[in-house]
Amino acid sequence: MKSSNGQASRPSFESIWRMNEPINLDQKLGLFSDHWSPKIIAELNDQHVKLAKLKGEFVWHSHANEDEMFLVISGCLKIEFRDRVETLNPGELIVIPKGVEHRPVAQEEVSVMLFEPKTTLNTGDAQTSNLTRNDLDKL
Amino acid sequence: MKSSNGQASRPSFESIWRMNEPINLDQKLGLFSDHWSPKIIAELNDQHVKLAKLKGEFVWHSHANEDEMFLVISGCLKIEFRDRVETLNPGELIVIPKGVEHRPVAQEEVSVMLFEPKTTLNTGDAQTSNLTRNDLDKL
Repeated sequence: MKSSNGQASRPSFESIWRMNEPINLDQKLGLFSDHWSPKIIAELNDQHVKLAKLKGEFVWHSHANEDEMFLVISGCLKIEFRDRVETLNPGELIVIPKGVEHRPVAQEEVSVMLFEPKTTLNTGDAQTSNLTRNDLDKL
Repeated sequence: MKSSNGQASRPSFESIWRMNEPINLDQKLGLFSDHWSPKIIAELNDQHVKLAKLKGEFVWHSHANEDEMFLVISGCLKIEFRDRVETLNPGELIVIPKGVEHRPVAQEEVSVMLFEPKTTLNTGDAQTSNLTRNDLDKL
């Protein structure tokens, strides 16, 4: 490691967590089965990479300060917006701009990768409910 | 759209570029064939999502200020570090912390997705060369 001024620097424990070693998405997906409960698998640049399994209808919500990205790994995900519905199949991603209300819906189980700032709360501005996850597991 | 204080806000043109509509990775990969020339396919939270095709040996480099993520979509990617080599197959990702020297090597063609801050230069701190890309295409 060297910093921008060429001097040796020691990264924080958190900053080297899960860095620098390969992470297999299928292997991580095999470690959990609960729905609507994102797991952190990596972090970089104050962003989290998360995996989640979705089934059923989530709550309508938006994120005031964070854009959100869903990349579908398996299954078929519908993202409802107030004016339309988008359908995502494996290998497709969508970016949901901050402030835009949306509701993910998965008729059958869907696996997704999420890329979000560390500050992102899964239910955004929706009222806290049994779907809200504050402390996410790291896999 | 609504901002955190509930008032209507208008996103910049750039901030809505490629947002809010599905992006198919295979379709985007079909739009280019050059190697070591990342294409921007989406942006969020001051980060870029990029696709690149890699073949051969890149230059040794590090990024002073940016962590970097490679997610392999197809092919087999080796990331050489000064002390070891990591091998990534499709569905595997790696985060390379800022300041860590590395060299991607692809014996056969590899397709990758990259997550990086907008400020990231592909060759990092290596001397500018014919591999350096300053103005990336948006697909």
